[in-house]
Amino acid sequence: MDYVLAVDLGGTKIYSALVDSGDLIVKSDVRPTEAEFGQERVLDNIMAGIGAGAPLDALHGGKILGLGIGAPGPLDPCAGKVCYAPNLCWRDYNLRDVLQGRLGVPVFLENDANLAALGEHLYGAGQGHDDMVFITVSTGIGGGLILRGEIYDGAFGAAGEIGHLSVVPDGPACSCGGRGCLEALASGWAIGGQAQRLIAAGQGRRILAAAGGDAEAVGCPAIVQAAHDGDPEARELLAAAGRYLGQAIGNIANLLNPSLFVIGGGVATAAGRLLLEAAETAAGQRVFPALRCFLKIVPASLGARAGVLGAAAYAHHKLGSGK
Amino acid sequence: MDYVLAVDLGGTKIYSALVDSGDLIVKSDVRPTEAEFGQERVLDNIMAGIGAGAPLDALHGGKILGLGIGAPGPLDPCAGKVCYAPNLCWRDYNLRDVLQGRLGVPVFLENDANLAALGEHLYGAGQGHDDMVFITVSTGIGGGLILRGEIYDGAFGAAGEIGHLSVVPDGPACSCGGRGCLEALASGWAIGGQAQRLIAAGQGRRILAAAGGDAEAVGCPAIVQAAHDGDPEARELLAAAGRYLGQAIGNIANLLNPSLFVIGGGVATAAGRLLLEAAETAAGQRVFPALRCFLKIVPASLGARAGVLGAAAYAHHKLGSGK
Repeated sequence: MDYVLAVDLGGTKIYSALVDSGDLIVKSDVRPTEAEFGQERVLDNIMAGIGAGAPLDALHGGKILGLGIGAPGPLDPCAGKVCYAPNLCWRDYNLRDVLQGRLGVPVFLENDANLAALGEHLYGAGQGHDDMVFITVSTGIGGGLILRGEIYDGAFGAAGEIGHLSVVPDGPACSCGGRGCLEALASGWAIGGQAQRLIAAGQGRRILAAAGGDAEAVGCPAIVQAAHDGDPEARELLAAAGRYLGQAIGNIANLLNPSLFVIGGGVATAAGRLLLEAAETAAGQRVFPALRCFLKIVPASLGARAGVLGAAAYAHHKLGSGK
Repeated sequence: MDYVLAVDLGGTKIYSALVDSGDLIVKSDVRPTEAEFGQERVLDNIMAGIGAGAPLDALHGGKILGLGIGAPGPLDPCAGKVCYAPNLCWRDYNLRDVLQGRLGVPVFLENDANLAALGEHLYGAGQGHDDMVFITVSTGIGGGLILRGEIYDGAFGAAGEIGHLSVVPDGPACSCGGRGCLEALASGWAIGGQAQRLIAAGQGRRILAAAGGDAEAVGCPAIVQAAHDGDPEARELLAAAGRYLGQAIGNIANLLNPSLFVIGGGVATAAGRLLLEAAETAAGQRVFPALRCFLKIVPASLGARAGVLGAAAYAHHKLGSGK
């Protein structure tokens, strides 16, 4: 049996999997990224996750054909470089060559959100949709485009920076240096900051209670819990995030006319309908009337598996192996 | 010699051409659309433009293989239908089948801006750029996407509605029913309206003078003339339009990471650097910092020929003929 290895390298966790030629996850692993301890530590953690130190081919009595890896972007998939990954404090790092040197098999690097988009397209909520947009709402906001059945990553590998679409010109400052980006208004860190400001102003008492009374611990989990318990302030925070998300979705629909938007990521998954319904309404208002009938927004269905499944499929595709 | 016919059907004019298999325009025609006299008149004008009543194949002693036609969108290229074209007062009109019935050759329908994008990509300012975005700033604002070297028209043929990207949420009303669309802020009709409001408020005297003192005749030509003559009010109107255009370009760059933006259309061409420089500055501020180095914006180079050249290439491509 032939296998590929698949890695989803995130700012906090590394998901890895051994995937057979039928796209079945044979073995998987999750461990902390530990980016704060430097590049070498992250590499060691990737290696430990996929192989636990054993010679790769000896693992399962089969042949490891290659590795697909998703990393935070923007990156240059052709050169195999991570160009700029603030969560990892990496800049212009040739992750592909380093891993190829350690592993002795071909390594294929793509943006993590692009690979999650491919995973959802092939195995999840996006099945049957050759033109779909995947948006992940988690601590940050990312996205991946599947156009004509393939990842579309632009002329230089950096397409899909959906978190940095402007929704409120001159709005709040974003980590990218811009203002009013979707990520600065609707991401986990943005919503958490909004809740903390509410609490600092003497409001948001039920959100504070959901965080155990610790104002510094207030973040998305507490907001989502309070919202699910019916707190109107928490619900409004999630609905506002959903409206901003919907504005961006409406603009993307006008530009790309996809048949489906798939919304994943920890914050969107936890918030569920509270976020998605507001997004649907706002997107419907923003989209060009003649295109409104095409607008379809669904939750992602693969959760954290989307990234590794997409990474495996990408490696299989590049190798000409697999289904 | 084999030929294709190419038509660019606009709200005010019909451009048509006879194009040989080497993409050379052998013969061309421009005449008014006369949409106000109904569909039959428009069809008669198309027929007169391409054939002047003679049997098609007899025209040049060669064979006419087919016709490519660009029409205002959104439309459904697969079904051959114009879905909604307010400038023509058409809705759900199967232009392809009607023309095929009259001509007896295969007809290929695409959005006019998409075909102009293809023309600029193959023969104009976009040569060598497989991932480029074409924006036409004229009475309205339209766009076409060339991704991976081909027209990308979305899941349902309606991608590229760049005029209806939001740049100022809750901004001025747009013809689409939305608010703050790029078209409502930076198109010919939007800039003309802004100038008329200036004049109604007792300002814009040099713009009024450029319109021969007739407030009702104030539109883009007068604004552009006054701006080129150094009038600061007219210059600011064009610069503001350029800034809105640049915001949209920055957002599109973050989403699609193309290697080139090509800006065409009558208003952009007439305004020239006064519009483009403001657009470049605003786009540079909006684009994600790591992608800023990729941002390249150039004027279109084919003018009104882009549409028919793109239509001919599209027909050749669909027929498997031509270069």
